[in-house]
Amino acid sequence: MSDTHSLDTLIQALRRLPGVGQRSAQRMAFHLLQHDREGAQQLARALHEAVGQVRHCARCHTFTEAEVCATCSDPRRDASQLAVVETPADQAALERTGAFRGRYFVLMGRLSPLDGIGPRDIGVQRLIERACDGVVREVILATNFTAEGEATAHLIGQALRSRGLAVTRLARGVPAGSELEYVDLGTIAHALVDRR
Amino acid sequence: MSDTHSLDTLIQALRRLPGVGQRSAQRMAFHLLQHDREGAQQLARALHEAVGQVRHCARCHTFTEAEVCATCSDPRRDASQLAVVETPADQAALERTGAFRGRYFVLMGRLSPLDGIGPRDIGVQRLIERACDGVVREVILATNFTAEGEATAHLIGQALRSRGLAVTRLARGVPAGSELEYVDLGTIAHALVDRR
Repeated sequence: MSDTHSLDTLIQALRRLPGVGQRSAQRMAFHLLQHDREGAQQLARALHEAVGQVRHCARCHTFTEAEVCATCSDPRRDASQLAVVETPADQAALERTGAFRGRYFVLMGRLSPLDGIGPRDIGVQRLIERACDGVVREVILATNFTAEGEATAHLIGQALRSRGLAVTRLARGVPAGSELEYVDLGTIAHALVDRR
Repeated sequence: MSDTHSLDTLIQALRRLPGVGQRSAQRMAFHLLQHDREGAQQLARALHEAVGQVRHCARCHTFTEAEVCATCSDPRRDASQLAVVETPADQAALERTGAFRGRYFVLMGRLSPLDGIGPRDIGVQRLIERACDGVVREVILATNFTAEGEATAHLIGQALRSRGLAVTRLARGVPAGSELEYVDLGTIAHALVDRR
């Protein structure tokens, strides 16, 4: 229907969001136009603003509006430790623990041959240069414990160890507060091997 | 972090979409900024455009960019039949059947006391005026067969019948292509009562 061109265009644009199919996109468009036009305007402005302002930190590659992000330019952080994470969300999870005071390198992804994501796309070369700055002593691989995250950690670990850097990996084991009965076998097996 | 203000703002704006929580919003924002900035720009433009262009049809209340929508202004449609649906998506579903050639009234919602949505919010008074134009002979209630849709149909049906209009409801019964063994009891009971 030509009298709903801008509605159809909106539904198609919403479908480009990850995890949003035709029905969700329709529901979102109807909701915004029927109940929250102010929210739609806000979202339009926020998108425009973010695309214009957000770039990658020159040192750790996370999202920032500055040349170098707040974490990388904080002099109180321990420059000898570098944690490698997949996404800003993973970095935020580590930060919430308060247990790590070093710096980060954010891959902004993970190796995923099936999706055509190789070492170049996650900036492995840039990470190597960053880690070999002469100040970093230990690289802590904090990629996810999924098949793709493990493969990413493996590749990065090899590359960094061959350059003489100390490389560690987050410990695998039984999650805090969990009962053994309900923990999967692989996790228990790892916890046994890494017992201390 | 103040160096990610526009990113945080974007995540908050995305959370206003129905069904989108903090994690989804984060994932959407990261995806757009990392992999699809063109898509983000497109979405911003589409939102802006739709909010500016889309309004409600003066006759059936659906979304349109014109004063009166394409369906309402199509002279080939049977003006004596008026189907009442909850949303434009429901109207589209009826249209796809090709079995209805009358006109529509789109409630843009359903009665839902728990959400504070009453007769006024779904334009019952406007529907009554529309249906009493002297041309409409039959009003077909095509709201959903949910508790809320049934309550909506009941209220509207009473209001219209009391004004002397013929009111019908879509038939309930066994869906085409289904095996009785797998159809729920309520549906089979209705199909029995409405047998022909």
